[in-house]
Amino acid sequence: MTRVTAERAAELFAQSKRWGRWGDADERGALNLLTPERVTRAIRLVRRGEVVSCGRELPVRPAVDNPTPAQHHMLIAGDVLGSAGALQSSADFVGVAFHGMVVSHIDALCHVFVDGEMYNGYPASDVTSVGATRNSIAAAFDGIVGRGVLLDIPRLRGVEWLEPGEAIAPDELDAASAAQDVDVEPGDILLVSTGRDARRAAQGRWDPVRVGLAGLDPECIAWLAEHDPSVLGSDGVSDPLPANAHAWPAPIHQCLLVGMGVHLLDNLQLGRVAAACAAEERWEFLFVVAPLQIGGGTGSPVNPVAVL
Amino acid sequence: MTRVTAERAAELFAQSKRWGRWGDADERGALNLLTPERVTRAIRLVRRGEVVSCGRELPVRPAVDNPTPAQHHMLIAGDVLGSAGALQSSADFVGVAFHGMVVSHIDALCHVFVDGEMYNGYPASDVTSVGATRNSIAAAFDGIVGRGVLLDIPRLRGVEWLEPGEAIAPDELDAASAAQDVDVEPGDILLVSTGRDARRAAQGRWDPVRVGLAGLDPECIAWLAEHDPSVLGSDGVSDPLPANAHAWPAPIHQCLLVGMGVHLLDNLQLGRVAAACAAEERWEFLFVVAPLQIGGGTGSPVNPVAVL
Amino acid sequence: MTRVTAERAAELFAQSKRWGRWGDADERGALNLLTPERVTRAIRLVRRGEVVSCGRELPVRPAVDNPTPAQHHMLIAGDVLGSAGALQSSADFVGVAFHGMVVSHIDALCHVFVDGEMYNGYPASDVTSVGATRNSIAAAFDGIVGRGVLLDIPRLRGVEWLEPGEAIAPDELDAASAAQDVDVEPGDILLVSTGRDARRAAQGRWDPVRVGLAGLDPECIAWLAEHDPSVLGSDGVSDPLPANAHAWPAPIHQCLLVGMGVHLLDNLQLGRVAAACAAEERWEFLFVVAPLQIGGGTGSPVNPVAVL
Amino acid sequence: MTRVTAERAAELFAQSKRWGRWGDADERGALNLLTPERVTRAIRLVRRGEVVSCGRELPVRPAVDNPTPAQHHMLIAGDVLGSAGALQSSADFVGVAFHGMVVSHIDALCHVFVDGEMYNGYPASDVTSVGATRNSIAAAFDGIVGRGVLLDIPRLRGVEWLEPGEAIAPDELDAASAAQDVDVEPGDILLVSTGRDARRAAQGRWDPVRVGLAGLDPECIAWLAEHDPSVLGSDGVSDPLPANAHAWPAPIHQCLLVGMGVHLLDNLQLGRVAAACAAEERWEFLFVVAPLQIGGGTGSPVNPVAVL
Repeated sequence: MTRVTAERAAELFAQSKRWGRWGDADERGALNLLTPERVTRAIRLVRRGEVVSCGRELPVRPAVDNPTPAQHHMLIAGDVLGSAGALQSSADFVGVAFHGMVVSHIDALCHVFVDGEMYNGYPASDVTSVGATRNSIAAAFDGIVGRGVLLDIPRLRGVEWLEPGEAIAPDELDAASAAQDVDVEPGDILLVSTGRDARRAAQGRWDPVRVGLAGLDPECIAWLAEHDPSVLGSDGVSDPLPANAHAWPAPIHQCLLVGMGVHLLDNLQLGRVAAACAAEERWEFLFVVAPLQIGGGTGSPVNPVAVL
Repeated sequence: MTRVTAERAAELFAQSKRWGRWGDADERGALNLLTPERVTRAIRLVRRGEVVSCGRELPVRPAVDNPTPAQHHMLIAGDVLGSAGALQSSADFVGVAFHGMVVSHIDALCHVFVDGEMYNGYPASDVTSVGATRNSIAAAFDGIVGRGVLLDIPRLRGVEWLEPGEAIAPDELDAASAAQDVDVEPGDILLVSTGRDARRAAQGRWDPVRVGLAGLDPECIAWLAEHDPSVLGSDGVSDPLPANAHAWPAPIHQCLLVGMGVHLLDNLQLGRVAAACAAEERWEFLFVVAPLQIGGGTGSPVNPVAVL
Repeated sequence: MTRVTAERAAELFAQSKRWGRWGDADERGALNLLTPERVTRAIRLVRRGEVVSCGRELPVRPAVDNPTPAQHHMLIAGDVLGSAGALQSSADFVGVAFHGMVVSHIDALCHVFVDGEMYNGYPASDVTSVGATRNSIAAAFDGIVGRGVLLDIPRLRGVEWLEPGEAIAPDELDAASAAQDVDVEPGDILLVSTGRDARRAAQGRWDPVRVGLAGLDPECIAWLAEHDPSVLGSDGVSDPLPANAHAWPAPIHQCLLVGMGVHLLDNLQLGRVAAACAAEERWEFLFVVAPLQIGGGTGSPVNPVAVL
Repeated sequence: MTRVTAERAAELFAQSKRWGRWGDADERGALNLLTPERVTRAIRLVRRGEVVSCGRELPVRPAVDNPTPAQHHMLIAGDVLGSAGALQSSADFVGVAFHGMVVSHIDALCHVFVDGEMYNGYPASDVTSVGATRNSIAAAFDGIVGRGVLLDIPRLRGVEWLEPGEAIAPDELDAASAAQDVDVEPGDILLVSTGRDARRAAQGRWDPVRVGLAGLDPECIAWLAEHDPSVLGSDGVSDPLPANAHAWPAPIHQCLLVGMGVHLLDNLQLGRVAAACAAEERWEFLFVVAPLQIGGGTGSPVNPVAVL
């Protein structure tokens, strides 16, 4: 499968790359755009005080769309109480290999390399077998707070969902902005809905690796570089799947994470926030992501929250 | 060790218990206080757009204060790249048994039982060996957004930290409110600082179970019932440790989670937010907690975020 | 890649299939061949009292040949001792997703299905998302003890190792038997060496999925059905890799586990036992495998032991 | 609770300690006793070819006697088959914190320290937070094969089981040897049955830490030093519980692992082998333990196998 030639992908990478923009020692990338001014402006967007999660429930059962189930075990259960005198309690363990096509997660800037380098030119070897020493998720330990903007592509197309493998063209991003009367501005947390959860609710699970996921055509990379979001998220993985069968299998991941220093949010659940936005006819909101503080981590499972 | 007699603890439980307040089928407890109105009021508290994490880094190394280290493994490391054509990437697994005295986490209402019952009268047996069917962390899946109020007890006492085992009296909560010129109101997310992280920075690690943690005297329970917070958090575990050696080892946990339906935040890192508040002489802020969506879970590791 | 047509593989399956041989309710398959008589005969093979492991060290670091590293964490370390009075100790956690091309493990008869069925005709759906209710590794909980026979193919060919992807023909199995003066008899635990560990020591790691592993040509299946081993093991995964690109990707796994009810040992370390056998010019020995007692498990990591 | 004074325990340690016996660089301790001669003599004990496991099933459900449940997850289940062309299979993950009072496991010589030192005088700090660099379970990677001798104490006493907390006196070890007409000789793998599994079958689970386990009186240490086993095992943890409330909480563990260099097998299931021995009136057999090859590990879960 090839949506873009390797040559064109390399060209897009070269054009969008902006290492050094925030200094040679920077590891935060476009999170630098989330200045206090932009945070306070995002805060002022809240009208109704409605809080909506954009995360999926952690998937613990094996399934065709869940090759690496999250682990959830009870350690103490309530039907097996200890003797009197001790605290009666329950407890559990949770664990997850969060990357992939299932779990709502954030990608740290160390998650992807191009030609053995990651964002800002650090070598891939800085991500050792005991953790990342550069570009880890520590860049986001303080939490990510900003203006969320949702572009609802199924709404633009008048469908309930995009089919697996479909790609969104750059002019559709413009058209959605226009139709929704919302501009994507520098520093925004841009969320692109493909209706994945609606399709799953209607038609059941499918294998995202083989069957595919809808996403952004690689030609959107220039659009993204121009609009300059702080974070990009999707209910898929931003890149359409199946992946390209060459050295640029996932150009959005490769150009955004490595070239532009933009953290990605994968596998969000955007149906509820899309409905809330449509009800208000307003597609901007306060958006908060609070990654777990995983030292040396390549990302984190997250439960991003929109406040409308 | 006994800070309160079992009789008095039982009395405090009976007095503070308010099952049925939000209906017999309720599982959200005091989260019901976080109405859209309270959310919008909390939003308006933001002045500077400063975002401060109140979570600790996930503790992965064994230590005297870390008997159940979190698990963090690299699955793909950057110094071992695959062949050309595939995505060059890194990935990891993270897992944690989050309850205890180390990890920043939220306790779901199913975490503790009194006499075989949990909040709103559901039997402990509803928390089975495969997960909680009642009062799980699902009550907070949408995220918790509200007004955070920090009571800084070391500041009140003119010390850097409280010693392990010290208890905070109810009149100190009033005194801190007065000194900081901030009222604790119904629906607030109340955070009580004991200076735990300052002590650790200065004196090194200690065993919280045996040596102890500073916390709230059980007599604070009536004060808490009166002030009606939506959530209670601390840099310790709210209960002072070592625990009482009778059927009420941790009365704050027992009365707040079970009797009052108040979710607890344990092992927060409050030093930075306390410093930010002191700098502004203002101890109220927007506070956001986004638990992982662990189906049937008894809580979640979290990275709570304050926005000042 | 195709080493055998799908039609021929299906034919081999039909020919080797022997469901019902040990009764319709059987779940032990060829382990039934390990009668007390065969155990005592295997015992009598021991001459020198030399004990040699045939397992690899659990692989905990990510590598090109280790996509799912085993988990090993210290829970208590010796450089962080607790206070006096308690036991001074260390402890750890170990975990592993043992199937695949890395970890020395045994495959239970429930590990593979053909057309939705497993050994003896039980439906694949008997292996539920909480564990196998049929054909689990429980069949081997008591331990596997028998006569081990090693066929050393690199020795036969006069090389140090077979190259990835090479296939061993049935007449080579006969030739190796003849050259080593050892007959493969019913009930034997048959081990086939390809020199994988020698190649890795000499040339470094490689990706077994893409680059390949040496193994048995599918045409060996009839030979195996005729010689009737109780267990088949290899330093690879018995099937040559890369896998066939049709419905019979791994015919040895499919015919032996499903059709014949023969447990498989994958990713053994056979270099040391091969050297010990060559030194004695005797390729038979007592062989013991003791799977962990994983209820509902699809196999187990193991450390098989040869006694010469 | 105190079964022995701290002074007497220290004395027993000093008397039984034999660092340097196998050289100053030794890490195998009494496993050195398992010479090829002893292995071949053990082999010759087999009469009937009966193979009996001495391990318990891995305990995955929380229970009063299971505070740290083993983890077992399905990764691929048979009721969720992938598309045609791929291998139809099931797979799982297993993990366990094996030390404690539940899981059948072997203790490596690095598991316990006395005054900051472990067997042969290596400092506890050699067991770092990433693994043991000395006295790890690597000493047993090749497998442990020897003569097993079972002393059946409930049989001696004419009861079905010893009660939790009961201690076995040294003269009972002599009496059991005499009654069973079996001598415990140097290099034997000595197994001491307390009937734990019979009690659990009859009376249900109990908390071994608080309620207790039967074990060997600390005064047995001199007896053990004299009889010189290669390994000591029990259906409890050899030490009676509850533990002593002083610096020698578990003198058997402390003297055998640290002083004498004897690996321990804890939480075995000895009921079946005891019954098989009684049926033959013969309490000696071939015994095989094959620890997982956990690099730097402090032990391993095991499924020890007796062959009668």
